[in-house]
Amino acid sequence: MIDLRPVTFVIGVLLSILAAAMLVPAAVDLILGHRDWEVFIASSAVTVFAGVSMILTTRTGWASFNIRQAFVMTTGAWATIALFGALPLSFSELGLSFTDAVFESMSGITTTGSTVIVGLDTAPPGILIWRAMLQWLGGIGIVVMAIAILPILRVGGMQLFRVEAFDADKVLPRAAQVAAAIAGIYILLTVFAAVLYYLLGMSGFDAIAHSMTSIATGGFSTHDASFGHWDSHGILWATSLIMILGSVPFVLYLRTIRGNPFAMLMDGQVRWMLAILAFAAAITTAFLVGNDFYTSADAARHGTFNVISVMTGTGYASADFGQWGGFVVVLMFILMFIGGCAGSTTCGIKIFRFQVVYAEARVQIRRLMQPHGVFIPYYNNRPIPDQVAQSVMGFFFVYTLSFAVLALALGLMGLDFVTAVSGAATAISNVGPGLGPIIGPSGTFTSLPDEAKWLLSFGMLLGRLELFTVLIMFAPSFWKG
Amino acid sequence: MIDLRPVTFVIGVLLSILAAAMLVPAAVDLILGHRDWEVFIASSAVTVFAGVSMILTTRTGWASFNIRQAFVMTTGAWATIALFGALPLSFSELGLSFTDAVFESMSGITTTGSTVIVGLDTAPPGILIWRAMLQWLGGIGIVVMAIAILPILRVGGMQLFRVEAFDADKVLPRAAQVAAAIAGIYILLTVFAAVLYYLLGMSGFDAIAHSMTSIATGGFSTHDASFGHWDSHGILWATSLIMILGSVPFVLYLRTIRGNPFAMLMDGQVRWMLAILAFAAAITTAFLVGNDFYTSADAARHGTFNVISVMTGTGYASADFGQWGGFVVVLMFILMFIGGCAGSTTCGIKIFRFQVVYAEARVQIRRLMQPHGVFIPYYNNRPIPDQVAQSVMGFFFVYTLSFAVLALALGLMGLDFVTAVSGAATAISNVGPGLGPIIGPSGTFTSLPDEAKWLLSFGMLLGRLELFTVLIMFAPSFWKG
Repeated sequence: MIDLRPVTFVIGVLLSILAAAMLVPAAVDLILGHRDWEVFIASSAVTVFAGVSMILTTRTGWASFNIRQAFVMTTGAWATIALFGALPLSFSELGLSFTDAVFESMSGITTTGSTVIVGLDTAPPGILIWRAMLQWLGGIGIVVMAIAILPILRVGGMQLFRVEAFDADKVLPRAAQVAAAIAGIYILLTVFAAVLYYLLGMSGFDAIAHSMTSIATGGFSTHDASFGHWDSHGILWATSLIMILGSVPFVLYLRTIRGNPFAMLMDGQVRWMLAILAFAAAITTAFLVGNDFYTSADAARHGTFNVISVMTGTGYASADFGQWGGFVVVLMFILMFIGGCAGSTTCGIKIFRFQVVYAEARVQIRRLMQPHGVFIPYYNNRPIPDQVAQSVMGFFFVYTLSFAVLALALGLMGLDFVTAVSGAATAISNVGPGLGPIIGPSGTFTSLPDEAKWLLSFGMLLGRLELFTVLIMFAPSFWKG
Repeated sequence: MIDLRPVTFVIGVLLSILAAAMLVPAAVDLILGHRDWEVFIASSAVTVFAGVSMILTTRTGWASFNIRQAFVMTTGAWATIALFGALPLSFSELGLSFTDAVFESMSGITTTGSTVIVGLDTAPPGILIWRAMLQWLGGIGIVVMAIAILPILRVGGMQLFRVEAFDADKVLPRAAQVAAAIAGIYILLTVFAAVLYYLLGMSGFDAIAHSMTSIATGGFSTHDASFGHWDSHGILWATSLIMILGSVPFVLYLRTIRGNPFAMLMDGQVRWMLAILAFAAAITTAFLVGNDFYTSADAARHGTFNVISVMTGTGYASADFGQWGGFVVVLMFILMFIGGCAGSTTCGIKIFRFQVVYAEARVQIRRLMQPHGVFIPYYNNRPIPDQVAQSVMGFFFVYTLSFAVLALALGLMGLDFVTAVSGAATAISNVGPGLGPIIGPSGTFTSLPDEAKWLLSFGMLLGRLELFTVLIMFAPSFWKG
């Protein structure tokens, strides 16, 4: 049996933080004279009660975490926060069902950005801020987890980054300090984004809400039309930049500040990501111009913005790219799976895993020609340990399998091919919109059956926690000890 | 530089065999009084002239093959046979364009089964037999290649089967004898299929044509409605069985005959394949009954038949499964990629590669829980060598990448999402029909633009030769020596 006391204790602490966070939308609604402030106060009270109870009953009798407890804690924390984060959504004047509220909350905390809410433009301000905050908290949560926990859990090749986090440790001696420094950078980037948005013409409210969902590569907007609401070159280009800033490994910001100004550009993962984004944006722009969808300048901003939004898993849309023809739709479908860099707020398979398999495939091609030659695959100029390669291979397999099972199950629930396949992809990669007329960039998830919403919520959690962190708990031997 | 003389010599021999094969449809047309016999005679003359010229100019001055020559020979032979095999199609009274003729011929020789011909029911008998023969020759060609050449080329983990082919060698001392024995089994199975079809009510002509395309898991039919032409329980179940007989490793037939009656059922790959087929057929049948598409008996035969047809890459259809809703379409899309066993006539990723990655993923899950434990992945009760695991990983990566590039390019050529994505999948996995109204089970590839047909033809070749055999020739270092 696993001693769940330390797990419960940590989740209690996190719930207390969540309860405190709920006071922000309460204050917003109170100031703007909106009745929903009571809902946030009540939700906060329930959450803090649960959190403090969990802390008080489990604060003694344990010293440290073992690896199984770390798995339970990670999955348990994300699931619990999604449930409590759903409280204000469920009781607000939007009148969401419990299923819809949990879907929206999970979409928030996992930084996915799929929504079931129609009528964002007239929704209560507190709710809009709460959705943005869920994504913002989810974003910093995943960055810290990717640095502090996943490398130790060795999930899907994340042990590659144990060394790098350790490098960062040498700069700042203790883990708590690293986490605090990362959080500081995250806040600074958010403020930068908010100021930029405000200067470019957003209202103060929209600027703050979108700064949080941009840096978290989350994708919730305060308008049904998402970024189609603003017909602004500046806002689209600024958002493109900010989504990229949220997609790079946050540890590299630390290195940049601490004396290595080129840390970002020297990193293989960042260079690959920028190269893929540049290539995809260029070819999309050329396609849009060539097929007379837009003038050059409009094609460049819409093409770049939507390519970055989908690949980083943000999920904003500036136009309905589903109308741009088969090529763009296929491209977006592929980009959904890729994601950004490990150690960022993005989800998806992530760039470094493609680098690892590419290195392996290259070595293999050479070996075909020289069967007795010795070739070693490299990642960021270091040989890739066999165990990492195997972890990455296992990750690809389980990712593909999870995608296939999700898509099949969605098909069983009555969804058509495009909705089922793109819904599974968008959930597991935490992107936001899917493809097709129902859940595509101009649609919402509102009309899906309840069981599909629960399944997609599970898919988001699965993808966000790198699959194994969740799936391992279904192995009977996990609980046997 | 690579000495191409042995390559040219072997291709010359194969072309001479192809020329001889063309005399069969010539005889059929002559007997049935059809004018097209002249086309086959002329095509045969051109082909034998080319073949004999190649033999005569390269028959001396070389002793044996090196590994690079083996790569060039394999890809060169398949491509050349596809071109010469297109001659009769191009000049027949069907009036196919050169592009269409090459597409149809490549679809034949790679055992894919995609067709551009509308009006099969009234097509000249010689052409129908020629299409069936192309698939039949392609089927035995790939089985021999998978046993004799691919393990030596170490393509995508096929070196796993070097040992098994060697085991077979111990039974029958020399490679030529193994190949002859395999060919004998192939012919026996074809005769068995033809007799069975005839007894179940097909005409003699249809029985022979379909016996060849069934055992080759090819999928060409002599009717536009494919197996929807016969409303027969017996024919569908018999075909289901024969497709499976073509999807198992042919080496195991040898073992079965030579004293190990349970060789087939003891093989991990066969068991996995049967388990996946049984599961997919059962769930499809249940779905069809549950949604009132068919009565139980009809649901079972149509469900089982189409599941087997798609997963083995045969590509027959007994009904338009595109009308069966999202679940079946998603399932068929996934099954397309899986394929049958290595060493059979099937294409796709193939079962053993899923077994290898599954074994790796299992080991990884255990390692997550016990980071210092030693766990070894097994295939058929033997440890999987690291190089094999890496080869398989590289294969998955290159398969996914090839699929993505094909789908994107098809999108660029103006195809819609479903047609582009399923077209890429069906070509690279050598299945036959795609999904959707255009290239789905009730459509054909006729209306696609020429450049898409060339691309799909290349995709079929790529998939048939396990990707690396073709792609390696694009590496500049391959030609440098």
